[in-house]
Amino acid sequence: MTELDKAHAVIMAGGSGTRFWPLSRSSRPKQFLSLGPDDRSLLRATAERVWEVIPPSRTWVVTGESQQDLVEKELPELDRGQILAEPVGRNTAPCIGWAASHILRRDENAIMAVLPADHYISETDGYVDSLRRGLEAATHGDYVTIGIRPTRAETGFGYIEVGGELDPGVFRARRFVEKPNRQRAEQFVASDRFLWNSGMFFFLASRILDAIDQHLPGLGNELRRYDEAARSGDEASAVRATYADLPAVSVDHGIMEKVDAVSVVPGSFPWSDLGSWTSAWELAEQDEHANVLPEDGICVDAHRNYVHAPSGKLIALVGVDDLVVVDSGDALLIVPSDRAQDVREVVAKLRERKDPRR
Amino acid sequence: MTELDKAHAVIMAGGSGTRFWPLSRSSRPKQFLSLGPDDRSLLRATAERVWEVIPPSRTWVVTGESQQDLVEKELPELDRGQILAEPVGRNTAPCIGWAASHILRRDENAIMAVLPADHYISETDGYVDSLRRGLEAATHGDYVTIGIRPTRAETGFGYIEVGGELDPGVFRARRFVEKPNRQRAEQFVASDRFLWNSGMFFFLASRILDAIDQHLPGLGNELRRYDEAARSGDEASAVRATYADLPAVSVDHGIMEKVDAVSVVPGSFPWSDLGSWTSAWELAEQDEHANVLPEDGICVDAHRNYVHAPSGKLIALVGVDDLVVVDSGDALLIVPSDRAQDVREVVAKLRERKDPRR
Repeated sequence: MTELDKAHAVIMAGGSGTRFWPLSRSSRPKQFLSLGPDDRSLLRATAERVWEVIPPSRTWVVTGESQQDLVEKELPELDRGQILAEPVGRNTAPCIGWAASHILRRDENAIMAVLPADHYISETDGYVDSLRRGLEAATHGDYVTIGIRPTRAETGFGYIEVGGELDPGVFRARRFVEKPNRQRAEQFVASDRFLWNSGMFFFLASRILDAIDQHLPGLGNELRRYDEAARSGDEASAVRATYADLPAVSVDHGIMEKVDAVSVVPGSFPWSDLGSWTSAWELAEQDEHANVLPEDGICVDAHRNYVHAPSGKLIALVGVDDLVVVDSGDALLIVPSDRAQDVREVVAKLRERKDPRR
Repeated sequence: MTELDKAHAVIMAGGSGTRFWPLSRSSRPKQFLSLGPDDRSLLRATAERVWEVIPPSRTWVVTGESQQDLVEKELPELDRGQILAEPVGRNTAPCIGWAASHILRRDENAIMAVLPADHYISETDGYVDSLRRGLEAATHGDYVTIGIRPTRAETGFGYIEVGGELDPGVFRARRFVEKPNRQRAEQFVASDRFLWNSGMFFFLASRILDAIDQHLPGLGNELRRYDEAARSGDEASAVRATYADLPAVSVDHGIMEKVDAVSVVPGSFPWSDLGSWTSAWELAEQDEHANVLPEDGICVDAHRNYVHAPSGKLIALVGVDDLVVVDSGDALLIVPSDRAQDVREVVAKLRERKDPRR
């Protein structure tokens, strides 16, 4: 572990998901909320976790232009220059490529740890261990990812097939598999050879740019133009002029599935992608009837409900089961747990009628 | 209709029901709320309806001591002396008897219209017509009540069996029947000879005191003591000393079921006793899927829900049916419509833990 002073963290905080409406809004997406049993925002928690290994001075955040101020407020340890503002989200390959070229200008041997800002990880030690292993493996030139041991036959995630062990705790990744159907997901879980793709990646900044040049040459050319503009002092206007034209492709699909020498570090920590309010219910401390509600709440014959409400608000549930209830002060959502994803339809209706509360 | 200048209205506003929690509180019971599709409180609406026939100067309100100020605020037209404050609620017979003796001191020929403060009546003309008929019949010395034509086999109300017509729109009341079981209630409705007991009564003040002397002599004696104390200028302390010892009996059960010469005026107006949140749903304007919710609310695949929330709050219901949802700002209740009565259990729990939000 000699190369840790070359390690840079890139936190991807550009998400604009609607699945946590009404708490999340287009102006305040999920990563800025505290959704797990932790008072910190997911972004803040992500940064503090990574700072166990990589200091704030080598931490970069890629986010949307409109969220720059929110990031600054959450992470006052960063300089404004460490926040890369995308004019528009174009999925992860452009985001990571741009960050790579940015970092490479400062450190030609830089190793990147690329981390989503909106996951929930309850246990820091195991995470830090995986982070160190990932960075270490990346120093050899590998493309590295963290894989999570599946706890259910989830059809909403990509999977990674694990091959032989390369180093202690580091394995060859045989292949990436996109979101499978139910039957395949069950086979994957039963086989014990598949891990969930966590979206956390490690590579040399120079290596990922090489891979982009090879597999996404259009993106590669554009990134080179940004780099030249940056060297002549006007990166911002170059980015603003053409970022929207970059291919909206994920690094998984555009790069990781195509390169050789991909390794995977099985993550030995509890992890949730917080995909919906139901995930928040799963993570939270539940009462003896599996209800989650603010302190002082009253349940009469109520089971497996999740209530998020302003603290101090008295919640009373009588004779209801399996509901998600979210009171954001200015809005109230009620939906059965198994339809929590359908909150998108509410946001779609709000967008349709140009309601600012979306 | 010559005796209308002898008519006094007695509005019974002492209720302390819990069925509209969290909007109603022990410190602000149902009659002070606007629960129907009408911005006025039920008490204010009751007063304004009766003022079509009887002026504010002859309107009396009986309420609990702690609610005197609320009544004054709702009905600034009344003098403080027109608000009779019971130290403790003892059901309707003591309340009506006390009001009768109070009024009789001012007008020995007074006719009383006794009206609950917490019912919802959407149509004033028919109500005023019934009120006039009731007062008119009472001038002859009858004990008169308004009966409501049943719209369902309700087991929560008392019924009145109707006999022959005495005057146009006024019938002999054969008997009062206490809350029947389902089977009897169905027979009553099918027979077309039964009306719901509305709890609205008309009688000469002198006649009701005679009846109390005959059927509830203990109460009669005590009321006489209050009257004497009033004449010597210290009614308040007499009332405060012994009111709690009065028999807690209803005028229906204690008097109306026992006296002869009871007549009934079939009410020709839409009426609800607003017995639970479900009644509020029934009365409110419903959308095409029978949902009731504040303006701008969003329903996705949701049916027959009733939502009461602060105006301006955005409500989103996805995939839920038959719920009552009440957001009072500081509290939120969710209960299926068919269990709306069970809100009492929440209030009981709040009382148990001495929570002031009951």
